[in-house]
Amino acid sequence: MGTFTLQSLRHPIIQAPMAGGPSTPALAAAVSGAGGLGFLAAGYKTVDAVRAELGELRALLAEGQPFGVNVFVPSVSKADPEALAAYARTLRGEADRQGATLGEPRWDDDHYDEKLDLLCAAGIPVVSFTFGCPPHAQVRRLHESGASVWVTVTTADEAGLAAAAGADALVVQGVEAGGHRGGFDDERPGDIGLLALLQLVRRAVGNELALVAAGGIATGQAIAAVLAAGADAAQLGTAFLLCPEAATAPLHHKVLAHGAVPTALTRAFTGRTARGVINRFLQEHSSHAPIGFPEVQHLTAPLRVAAGQHGDSGGVPLWAGQAYALAESRPAAEVVHLLAEAAQVALAQAAARLRGPAWGA
Amino acid sequence: MGTFTLQSLRHPIIQAPMAGGPSTPALAAAVSGAGGLGFLAAGYKTVDAVRAELGELRALLAEGQPFGVNVFVPSVSKADPEALAAYARTLRGEADRQGATLGEPRWDDDHYDEKLDLLCAAGIPVVSFTFGCPPHAQVRRLHESGASVWVTVTTADEAGLAAAAGADALVVQGVEAGGHRGGFDDERPGDIGLLALLQLVRRAVGNELALVAAGGIATGQAIAAVLAAGADAAQLGTAFLLCPEAATAPLHHKVLAHGAVPTALTRAFTGRTARGVINRFLQEHSSHAPIGFPEVQHLTAPLRVAAGQHGDSGGVPLWAGQAYALAESRPAAEVVHLLAEAAQVALAQAAARLRGPAWGA
Repeated sequence: MGTFTLQSLRHPIIQAPMAGGPSTPALAAAVSGAGGLGFLAAGYKTVDAVRAELGELRALLAEGQPFGVNVFVPSVSKADPEALAAYARTLRGEADRQGATLGEPRWDDDHYDEKLDLLCAAGIPVVSFTFGCPPHAQVRRLHESGASVWVTVTTADEAGLAAAAGADALVVQGVEAGGHRGGFDDERPGDIGLLALLQLVRRAVGNELALVAAGGIATGQAIAAVLAAGADAAQLGTAFLLCPEAATAPLHHKVLAHGAVPTALTRAFTGRTARGVINRFLQEHSSHAPIGFPEVQHLTAPLRVAAGQHGDSGGVPLWAGQAYALAESRPAAEVVHLLAEAAQVALAQAAARLRGPAWGA
Repeated sequence: MGTFTLQSLRHPIIQAPMAGGPSTPALAAAVSGAGGLGFLAAGYKTVDAVRAELGELRALLAEGQPFGVNVFVPSVSKADPEALAAYARTLRGEADRQGATLGEPRWDDDHYDEKLDLLCAAGIPVVSFTFGCPPHAQVRRLHESGASVWVTVTTADEAGLAAAAGADALVVQGVEAGGHRGGFDDERPGDIGLLALLQLVRRAVGNELALVAAGGIATGQAIAAVLAAGADAAQLGTAFLLCPEAATAPLHHKVLAHGAVPTALTRAFTGRTARGVINRFLQEHSSHAPIGFPEVQHLTAPLRVAAGQHGDSGGVPLWAGQAYALAESRPAAEVVHLLAEAAQVALAQAAARLRGPAWGA
């Protein structure tokens, strides 16, 4: 167990790590500085890039301010080479459209061991995991480095496994969440709504383990709701995507701010189930996309880069949670303060309604 | 606007109408008698059967105790005759297995006008609608009869339409909910988690309209959560399925009490998207099932009846919300009292956590 506790935060608000661009040291520093907990996203990055971001973040934080780093857990490849080849064929028109060449659908472990070494050496307050559960020995090693270990779960079964591995907290990710489903097995990605999942996980793991609720939380009311449901804190990603400190791609930013189109789950961009705003690529390719992360991620990478360069929002992933239309374009510290204030008001109002003269008569 | 208000309830707990068997006058009376709001389900029933249930319920209720009745809104048939015929062919093996003959895939309006006449004449405190929004003139007629009118919605757009039609409250149904998706258009059934949906609907309709939250609510903690999220009450269906007052079919009861298998959405049984525990019929037929309610409902009816008679839980719909494993086998009044008590404790604990010396420092 690390020395960090959720109870030490001024506000029970966690900034979700958002790999692939949006998460920055500036965003994490702003959230931690405002009394929440900011996160760096180590996924997709080289070890040197993660080291550089850690240095940047530490320079921005006041002494003793906590933060977290998120890591992707690699899993045995589930991709079928024939299915990958077939998907590559269906993407030829897309490659022509973007004037790009498909990438090589290769597997890699995202430098997992090296990242773990770096984080153990660096003394990180919170290390969270996505796409799987680290083995007990790695959890112990992180504990010895002083880190608290969080594991993302999407079902009650995953929660049980993470608890058994020694996790200090579970990031309970409802189906509302934007970006990738964070569970252990994308053949059966957890599809449970956050409120149902919080109840099931709490029942599965008892009251000792801290729960961080994630998925579709965009307002102080929803933060109050997950606390009432038994979570110890709320983790918000999409709600920070419009902050000036986030490095959200301009095309992505524009679609989010427009706020009109629903989201859907898809494996089309990366071979792993993820939620984004519905666009052309998602509509045309979701039904063909095979399971296979990171193979499909590498396969489509040049198309996505080219679409971004062409300003084609139909060709890039537009990751967003189901409540993305409520995200506000403000500095991250303001977002944290407004959310915390609204959460307090919401709880007081709900308690008054439940206890009040009318209800209590 | 009717004379009933949610604020007049002792507990903000609504028993969801569960058409097709489980809802009974005894269940509605027990919930209303305990200070919640019980519901009859008029769907699938003849007008005479609804009239008889109303008489039964009124005999069980104390003077002035409120209750509700739910009605299915008919919609123009969306079934494609060829798709129905093709589905009928894929169901032949199922018919052989059950020793039954497929039903006629006919459209009907579930006696909508006659039911509306009955309810207007009977003076019902709350009339709720599922599968669509009644036109403004029908809402006005119900208001004149003294009824409050509630409309089930699954998206922010549906919420806007229901508000414009004059609804007094919206039943905000998250994707977690058991049984049918209650929205207006099954070609695009709402797939939004309850907590995300409550935030989006509240933003869409403002603070004047009452919201009743539904979907995956099984504990007092979750009731507290939806109140914190801005709902005025919580509607629970699956949580009452194991009560002795519910007429839940024995096979259905047994699977629910076992609580081990996940749920999924399917059109296989009725031609309209609904959530049930995964079983053989759901797994084998979901990918073939066309849109078409009530045509497919009639087509599969003899198979479902026969499977029930054979004790084959693989052949009947096992409607259940995502948190069904938390349902308890107790009298309905006890369920209401325990939930209300736990909700109060949950709100107090959440408020203490948010305001407490550690958080507030």
